[in-house]
Amino acid sequence: MGFVVGGLALCGLSITPASAIEIQRVESPGGIEAWLVEDYTVPIVAMEFSFEGGTTQDPADKLGVTSLLSIMLDEGAGELDSQAFQQKLEDLTMSLSFSAGRDNFYGSFKTLSANKDETTDLLKLALTDPRFDAQPLERMKAKTIAGIERALKRPDSVAALAFTKELFPEHPYGWPRSGTVESVSNLTSADLEAQHTKIFARDGLKIGVVGAISAEDLSPLLDKVFGELPEAGSLTQIEEVEPATGVVKHLPFDTPQTSIQFAMPGLKRDDPQFMEAFVANHILGGGTFSSWLYNEVREERGLAYSVGSYLVPRDHTALWMGYTGTAGEKAPEAVEIITDQIKRLTKEGPSPKELQEAKAYLTGSYALSFDSSSSIANQLVGIQNANLGIDYINERNDLIENVTLEGVKAAAQNLLSGVEPSVITVGPFGAEQTDPIQ
Amino acid sequence: MGFVVGGLALCGLSITPASAIEIQRVESPGGIEAWLVEDYTVPIVAMEFSFEGGTTQDPADKLGVTSLLSIMLDEGAGELDSQAFQQKLEDLTMSLSFSAGRDNFYGSFKTLSANKDETTDLLKLALTDPRFDAQPLERMKAKTIAGIERALKRPDSVAALAFTKELFPEHPYGWPRSGTVESVSNLTSADLEAQHTKIFARDGLKIGVVGAISAEDLSPLLDKVFGELPEAGSLTQIEEVEPATGVVKHLPFDTPQTSIQFAMPGLKRDDPQFMEAFVANHILGGGTFSSWLYNEVREERGLAYSVGSYLVPRDHTALWMGYTGTAGEKAPEAVEIITDQIKRLTKEGPSPKELQEAKAYLTGSYALSFDSSSSIANQLVGIQNANLGIDYINERNDLIENVTLEGVKAAAQNLLSGVEPSVITVGPFGAEQTDPIQ
Repeated sequence: MGFVVGGLALCGLSITPASAIEIQRVESPGGIEAWLVEDYTVPIVAMEFSFEGGTTQDPADKLGVTSLLSIMLDEGAGELDSQAFQQKLEDLTMSLSFSAGRDNFYGSFKTLSANKDETTDLLKLALTDPRFDAQPLERMKAKTIAGIERALKRPDSVAALAFTKELFPEHPYGWPRSGTVESVSNLTSADLEAQHTKIFARDGLKIGVVGAISAEDLSPLLDKVFGELPEAGSLTQIEEVEPATGVVKHLPFDTPQTSIQFAMPGLKRDDPQFMEAFVANHILGGGTFSSWLYNEVREERGLAYSVGSYLVPRDHTALWMGYTGTAGEKAPEAVEIITDQIKRLTKEGPSPKELQEAKAYLTGSYALSFDSSSSIANQLVGIQNANLGIDYINERNDLIENVTLEGVKAAAQNLLSGVEPSVITVGPFGAEQTDPIQ
Repeated sequence: MGFVVGGLALCGLSITPASAIEIQRVESPGGIEAWLVEDYTVPIVAMEFSFEGGTTQDPADKLGVTSLLSIMLDEGAGELDSQAFQQKLEDLTMSLSFSAGRDNFYGSFKTLSANKDETTDLLKLALTDPRFDAQPLERMKAKTIAGIERALKRPDSVAALAFTKELFPEHPYGWPRSGTVESVSNLTSADLEAQHTKIFARDGLKIGVVGAISAEDLSPLLDKVFGELPEAGSLTQIEEVEPATGVVKHLPFDTPQTSIQFAMPGLKRDDPQFMEAFVANHILGGGTFSSWLYNEVREERGLAYSVGSYLVPRDHTALWMGYTGTAGEKAPEAVEIITDQIKRLTKEGPSPKELQEAKAYLTGSYALSFDSSSSIANQLVGIQNANLGIDYINERNDLIENVTLEGVKAAAQNLLSGVEPSVITVGPFGAEQTDPIQ
């Protein structure tokens, strides 16, 4: 979900933050680029970065290896074993974490500016010389397996896993990101090392930095931290793929609440119609209190507490997804309403008032997601990964304002005309039990 | 836990953020004071505020009313019903939430600076003219009751509820903060109105503001939002109380993992020995990877995944608490180790190296908790509530640096000599089943 959230936030800037957020492009002597926002309100520095290649880079017989790598990188490096490494993080009051998305591997680092030399030494060590010792490896495998087993008891995660497989039956996007109990059990430190070599390289690296540091001070640190990584990794080429449409699947599950997820084709982030689709989604299911799905499913019929939809632009595919959860006997009705609202979007489209409200919300809300140094740095990385340009933040509101009623309807028709959504339901579905009085 | 977290963070500033964080005292024409940090990095304004009086102000036959009030204040006000109010929050892209602590009632507000006139209109309406309509009231009561019922299925929350009652058997601090299923079921809109009148007043109000706003612009907004509240509420006076010591209680519970919580007397925030006790706690159980409890319980014996302790300074009492969770058959050993480490603190005290490391961590880590506008505003409110003065942020590191080995030991002896900790365990305890071979 990290990627989805990033994608949403990325598409929400406004109130001409141009005047407020000043982004510098910093290039190190060694040629490593970072985007920097200087901010001296508090003496800390936040850095977010991403490498090209995520869980789709798992070898087919080593599912979960990239996710496991992401939680092993702070479990010892260089001379420091797990305990010593964690102690050092604490001594330097730095925070460091990694996560694996489908297309990218993300890192998040925060330090007191006064400690930046020592903390970046440790960051470099974690990136270039991780240890993967036996004991922490076993602990993290056990933790991962426990997480997989827990997820198999929750209808929403069961739905997500099964749906992913249905949507991409022959493609790495269909794999479970954390792997399976069996695949994780078999992972070794050699597998982690191989995956590390595959992904950690300079050519797909994107960096965002926010805080109490100047371009002059940041520049040499970039070379220190990232300069010794190889120019290129050894990424497997991922095929382009379309999500399966018209798949309808029900998995019975012993729970009162039925989890419903649906999916249609979406648009990639660089598609010229992306903003139109983005506004269309807001009207369908993106707004908390004003979307069609919210009104029809929750307000009008009281079928569910939460319902929504969102765009999922990926590097090699694009989805338009949604979810709700309802009592089992109401599930068929909820599915029907959702399908009707999707059709309504291609047929009648939104009203002028709905479009205007959607634009007002989308242009207004972006700035609120920029309220911490880490979240600003995260946006800088997202904008680079989507290749939107350093001026995107200043231009983005105009792009939203320029969306027309015709444009929204055209994007919806382009994506949805003649397309049946795929739907998965997990839980009870309808009146499955016969009447006991009979 | 909100208060605990605030208390911890409050006690962690350093790296002379004096030079970085500039706090202005703003007084409105109507005499309302706020502390302001101007920050124009992004065009948003965050405000945090608190009223005196929290869940201890519940009437004894209306437990949970203050908590319920905190989730009802964005469910309609003035002319706006729940749905219209929520829609307006969304239209103005503002965020607004409330929470009830034991001693204080907290509010959190965030807005685009461009919308500050309209959003503060809505904030004022929520504070001064809330509606408490029947339908949202029933929904929120049902939500609260579901939460209470869920908590009764988790050993850690069962332990917390029962322990609170044991520690303060005759005092409002012993009450469940959300109330009981029965008490919440009986709450009415008249109860909420009475509680609102009781607590919402100007005399105990503390305000922190961070963001793109000048003192000149903030000043009239303070009068608009808070100026019509009465000068004083009608708070019930809360008696001073000491937590019960030496209480040992076990509640059998059908779960593999046993929840263990312990408590000793602590110090109030304005006690001259507070910083010594704060450092003592860090060494006992406050540090993630270096505390005695962590080393003994987790590293040496592998009894638990998490173990820790923390100070809980309140307005009318003070606690020093801790927790762990372990397999039922290991619970007696874990309790013994914890008790031994507490005794060790009064007898031998920490080593010079341990003291130095604790100081380095505590002085270093505070600034990291100042990384968002809301968290800075929250600190400003906390410092005002603890009456530490507007220069506290600049002075705080020196206070930590001045703590001596003798001071730490004296504080521990003062609090713990001759005192038996209270301990509650929920789950299986030891080898309760007889050997089936016999």
